Amino acid sequence: MFDLIPKKGGLENVEGFYFDGVNVGMKQEGEPDVAFIRSDVLCDVEALFTTNRFAAAPLKHYKRYPDGFKTNFLLINSKNANAMTSQKGIEDIDEIFESLKSKLPSIQNPIMSSTGVIGYRLDLKKIISSFDKFDFQKRDSDLASKAIMTTDSFKKEIAFNVRVENKGSFNIAAICKGAGMINPAMATMLCFIITDANIPREDMKDLLKKHIDTTFNAISVDGDTSTNDTVMLLANKKSGVYDKEAFSEALRQVMMNLALLIVKDGEGANKVVAFEVTGAKNDDEAKIAAKALSNSLLVKTALFGEDPNWGRIASTIGACGCECDEDSLTIYYDDVLIYSQDKRELDKETEREAFEVMKKDSFKIRCDLGVGKGAFRAYGCDLSYDYVKINADYRT
Amino acid sequence: MFDLIPKKGGLENVEGFYFDGVNVGMKQEGEPDVAFIRSDVLCDVEALFTTNRFAAAPLKHYKRYPDGFKTNFLLINSKNANAMTSQKGIEDIDEIFESLKSKLPSIQNPIMSSTGVIGYRLDLKKIISSFDKFDFQKRDSDLASKAIMTTDSFKKEIAFNVRVENKGSFNIAAICKGAGMINPAMATMLCFIITDANIPREDMKDLLKKHIDTTFNAISVDGDTSTNDTVMLLANKKSGVYDKEAFSEALRQVMMNLALLIVKDGEGANKVVAFEVTGAKNDDEAKIAAKALSNSLLVKTALFGEDPNWGRIASTIGACGCECDEDSLTIYYDDVLIYSQDKRELDKETEREAFEVMKKDSFKIRCDLGVGKGAFRAYGCDLSYDYVKINADYRT
Repeated sequence: MFDLIPKKGGLENVEGFYFDGVNVGMKQEGEPDVAFIRSDVLCDVEALFTTNRFAAAPLKHYKRYPDGFKTNFLLINSKNANAMTSQKGIEDIDEIFESLKSKLPSIQNPIMSSTGVIGYRLDLKKIISSFDKFDFQKRDSDLASKAIMTTDSFKKEIAFNVRVENKGSFNIAAICKGAGMINPAMATMLCFIITDANIPREDMKDLLKKHIDTTFNAISVDGDTSTNDTVMLLANKKSGVYDKEAFSEALRQVMMNLALLIVKDGEGANKVVAFEVTGAKNDDEAKIAAKALSNSLLVKTALFGEDPNWGRIASTIGACGCECDEDSLTIYYDDVLIYSQDKRELDKETEREAFEVMKKDSFKIRCDLGVGKGAFRAYGCDLSYDYVKINADYRT
Repeated sequence: MFDLIPKKGGLENVEGFYFDGVNVGMKQEGEPDVAFIRSDVLCDVEALFTTNRFAAAPLKHYKRYPDGFKTNFLLINSKNANAMTSQKGIEDIDEIFESLKSKLPSIQNPIMSSTGVIGYRLDLKKIISSFDKFDFQKRDSDLASKAIMTTDSFKKEIAFNVRVENKGSFNIAAICKGAGMINPAMATMLCFIITDANIPREDMKDLLKKHIDTTFNAISVDGDTSTNDTVMLLANKKSGVYDKEAFSEALRQVMMNLALLIVKDGEGANKVVAFEVTGAKNDDEAKIAAKALSNSLLVKTALFGEDPNWGRIASTIGACGCECDEDSLTIYYDDVLIYSQDKRELDKETEREAFEVMKKDSFKIRCDLGVGKGAFRAYGCDLSYDYVKINADYRT
């Protein structure tokens, strides 16, 4: 038995970690653009990275460390992804941490994480200037979570205190960024999770993998997979408490909630829509269909137009390659049955009811394929003029 | 040896066929919404249809005819796709043709083709009213090509006279529609090709299949595959002339030119862009990469913004699953080398040159992956505010 107690704020809910965000002149507006997360003891660390073949330099830098390595320092910058920068991009990270060592000799196996424009070397001078501006004793999750934002319109933090019956309690907290280049195979998103749970290293890896598919990998803003996606879990074990079931559920909640915040903050998006596919031949086909719905431009523009045009839903399912049949298909918008074998043409009453559902900020479109027991739920958003605007002008 | 002589107009370049378009009140503006194509002799017919599992009623109706059937009549309507209408949608077509038989007893194995909104039964009364309005002796390709338009902003016709040395000449002509729901696995497009070439039936099928992948299946407006896609070839053999090589090239030109017109007319699109991938592991991987580029929202919005942000090109290639390496990749915008191992950051001069290329109505983005000999060229367009507008409001 365990309880998840939601906490205000973010990273400051886990003792032994320090974090800050400062501006070094990369964001013109003076908003923080570099952050660190530091631990006063060595932490176990596990991470999942993008499937993009052009993994960015910080990911390659991370992978140079041996399996099972420990770390006590993480540096994160926005505005520049340090991607497609070749060996030089990795050497730049080495140079940055060389410089940091003179100020903070205690760092071991430091990790870097970057997000922003692809194809430019980091401005080392600016990044290194952060070391004079940081307060390494500070615990400011607000500034850290703001420093990692790119096109995000709000910061993303979450924290739980997890009480395990007869064992005590541990804490888990995270910050995250992401709003565009968000795709089914792990979004342009960075997520840093810290915990004081006494979690064994093998569970860190297993549980991250267990929950990634139904959380971060189930969301889509635009179907584009970035070069820098990262979900990282740092454990300092300080609470001495651990319960696998409780930790798994807490981790799932952290990942799910942050994933939904990313969709909510989807570039130009006004609505979060759950695409639930049931009755598929198997779970894999349900996943293909649900993700196809969340990525279809015609579905996304119909969501923006609040048009209960279920034909686009049906057409997308028919096109995605999964087993289906127009006579066994049913489509619901929340609880409104909008298509079934016996109810094909949209009557005025159903259209009105469906329109009421579509006006909401968030709702569910459920498609039962009626051919098996497979199920998957994906999350997406509408496609608005603002998405086009944001992405036509991104670099300027 | 043969020559392709481009002809003005469309279907009227092939003798023995008749065609007209009329308004029966489905298009509010009075524009033609129903068309026929009729032949004075029975024609061989071959067609390729959508891969969408929810193939529309007219496609199922066609497939009821035995292999190798001949026809002399084709009826086409816009505004309503007759898709997801079950067995009733097929019976509706039977009823329409029953009614036509009383006016035009000569029709044999008539074919119907539809495009428009999914999920509504045809208005039989309106469709049937076209039979009193048509002039069945008319040869008006202009009206027929307009009748099949939906969101198209211009009609699409093409014709060639094909002169074959020592053999004589034959003609080939086509009309086509398509502007949205245009996708890599055959677009929401209808294309009707007629010829008087004395082509053997087996060549009709073989040559359609041969050219579909590099023409209609190489274009993308929005990555959505419709329920009604059709490419149909009717041959009345009247010229008595045939040469396989000449016909193949003429057919390829017809299909390629019409495919490019569809992209040019892509909903809200301002630019036609060829995405040429070379140096891939094999042709299949080149195709995957080229189509991924043509479908990426981030690439499409960068085209709209005329932003030479090659990072999005690279990221899309890295994400698509094909074999690639950032050190062997090169990217060109027309002849401007914008990325290579030795030229990563965009210098001002290259940026200016690339920007000049992007300002054009049509240009090529070429990516050489540098890992093999596979090649494929896909065609796409930019994503503008107008795409969103058109598709947010489509039914209204």
